[in-house]
Amino acid sequence: MEEREFQELLKTRTDEAEQIIRSYLPPEEGFQRTVLEAMNYSLLAGGKRLRPLFMGETYRMFGGSGRVAEPFMAAMEMIHTYSLVHDDLPAMDNDMYRRGRETAWKVYGEGMGVLAGDGLLNYAYETALRAFDIVRADDRARQGGSGEPDARGGEDRSGVLTVARALAVLAEKAGVYGMIGGQCADVEAEEKGTAVSEELLLFIHEHKTAALLQASMMIGAILAGASEEEIRAVERCALNVGIAFQIQDDILDVTGDSGELGKSVGSDAQNHKETYVTVKGLDQSIADVEKLSREAVNILSGLPGEHSFLERLILMLIHRRA
Amino acid sequence: MEEREFQELLKTRTDEAEQIIRSYLPPEEGFQRTVLEAMNYSLLAGGKRLRPLFMGETYRMFGGSGRVAEPFMAAMEMIHTYSLVHDDLPAMDNDMYRRGRETAWKVYGEGMGVLAGDGLLNYAYETALRAFDIVRADDRARQGGSGEPDARGGEDRSGVLTVARALAVLAEKAGVYGMIGGQCADVEAEEKGTAVSEELLLFIHEHKTAALLQASMMIGAILAGASEEEIRAVERCALNVGIAFQIQDDILDVTGDSGELGKSVGSDAQNHKETYVTVKGLDQSIADVEKLSREAVNILSGLPGEHSFLERLILMLIHRRA
Repeated sequence: MEEREFQELLKTRTDEAEQIIRSYLPPEEGFQRTVLEAMNYSLLAGGKRLRPLFMGETYRMFGGSGRVAEPFMAAMEMIHTYSLVHDDLPAMDNDMYRRGRETAWKVYGEGMGVLAGDGLLNYAYETALRAFDIVRADDRARQGGSGEPDARGGEDRSGVLTVARALAVLAEKAGVYGMIGGQCADVEAEEKGTAVSEELLLFIHEHKTAALLQASMMIGAILAGASEEEIRAVERCALNVGIAFQIQDDILDVTGDSGELGKSVGSDAQNHKETYVTVKGLDQSIADVEKLSREAVNILSGLPGEHSFLERLILMLIHRRA
Repeated sequence: MEEREFQELLKTRTDEAEQIIRSYLPPEEGFQRTVLEAMNYSLLAGGKRLRPLFMGETYRMFGGSGRVAEPFMAAMEMIHTYSLVHDDLPAMDNDMYRRGRETAWKVYGEGMGVLAGDGLLNYAYETALRAFDIVRADDRARQGGSGEPDARGGEDRSGVLTVARALAVLAEKAGVYGMIGGQCADVEAEEKGTAVSEELLLFIHEHKTAALLQASMMIGAILAGASEEEIRAVERCALNVGIAFQIQDDILDVTGDSGELGKSVGSDAQNHKETYVTVKGLDQSIADVEKLSREAVNILSGLPGEHSFLERLILMLIHRRA
């Protein structure tokens, strides 16, 4: 795939993801209008929609062609967004700006910032649960259309059970043994300062960053009917991508161009924050990103279907300069 | 049902609910141990386990006898607990004590208070989703045991779809159009002070307090296979109970015994907080509690099954003096 073709497809797919997310925004009505505004303000703050993109592409790669992944794509972005809204709170990172706009708590107040994050997390489940309606409607259409029993064996529980499985993955990877676990370890590592081990840093990267990417690819695979082995393969692939992405973040903090990056270079060092680069050195970090990146692409190449776009997406993400 | 019999059964049922909740606590392990400790500290802070009790009793009333309601009972208590953990934060009510113990953020820090609430909300869904495993195991046992097709019509999707429906009710009533919506309106009403309308106060009581009671009774009914009409009936019943409970709270703030109540009488007035009593007057408030309470019991008496315990529970709750 050539660069221009990739960029065009990236734009098309990002626009599609954006449309899907917008179609699932909560309506702003009632006495609770403010929290709904704060949620939608945060959801529409921009962003690359990477997790929905990964989910949609993995779904396609395994032959998925229906709409059942759509509520999960929107739900995934809601979970990612809630984690940012709560991270920005004064009780956490105390950030006043994100992507050039004031953070939710700065605009709507601290209490509303807490509630907007809670609302987004809960609404992610309300949204993902709507996938049950989609598989049931598909089921009725199929039965009504052909009058024949379902091709998958007389009774169609597979769609419903597949959605249940995808929900379980979403909840696990977003939770205390997934992303929230990484946030907890991160909060404590910041308090500890320089006494952070490599093992702990990897735990944080794996949980705080990789977990939602893993869930995105796994859910795409599950909903498209991938095998257990394939689901495990995309889980490992996304782990490599997530960790490499985060190490690259640490590298860019040392070497990056602050204009491109949108934050000041060296801010981690100024905050005396232990990073992968301070623990392993710059050269080793760059080498590790290469290794993880190759490993991710290797895993992908062993899977069926068309994955040149997904491969390009992974390489773009890992090797970004900003 | 005599008072002594009721009290004994109440103790038995509360102990059962307590055991169920404890069986679903997240294990405290890994680099994220602190957030897990904060979650379990909050879950085990005591409390009457009212919502699980209401769910379990409604499930029984409609003939439910399996274990499928158990993960939902635990999940419901996790959602109730997360809402308290976040309510207590300095960004919200800034409470340092609850039930005679320090609040989670006071013990574990503000950041960890945010994460513990997030963790509890997310873990509620992880927990409730385990109901799918229970219905699938029941299904296999039934098919393996008798070799006959399921009694409910050849294919058993009903268990799985019933759990999906219960999850949707849980998510809706806990979310921005349920409990969180009420919290948002409450936060804004506090800022407004005395300019709060009766309509807004009722909205807050309905959403902040009644919504989880409604979900508890509805989920019990759904999982036991109640009809649509019956599900709507328990929804209305719980609405009356929830609003009456909250008005009684406002009444007790004026008339209560601070020793029994565990908080100082008149604290709402001191905080210049608009309540149902300040809006409607004490006599009207007492009359309204009576009316709502009678209505709840009336609805219940139109439903099948044994409900004398549930009726006593409702009356105890509404007419409590502390």
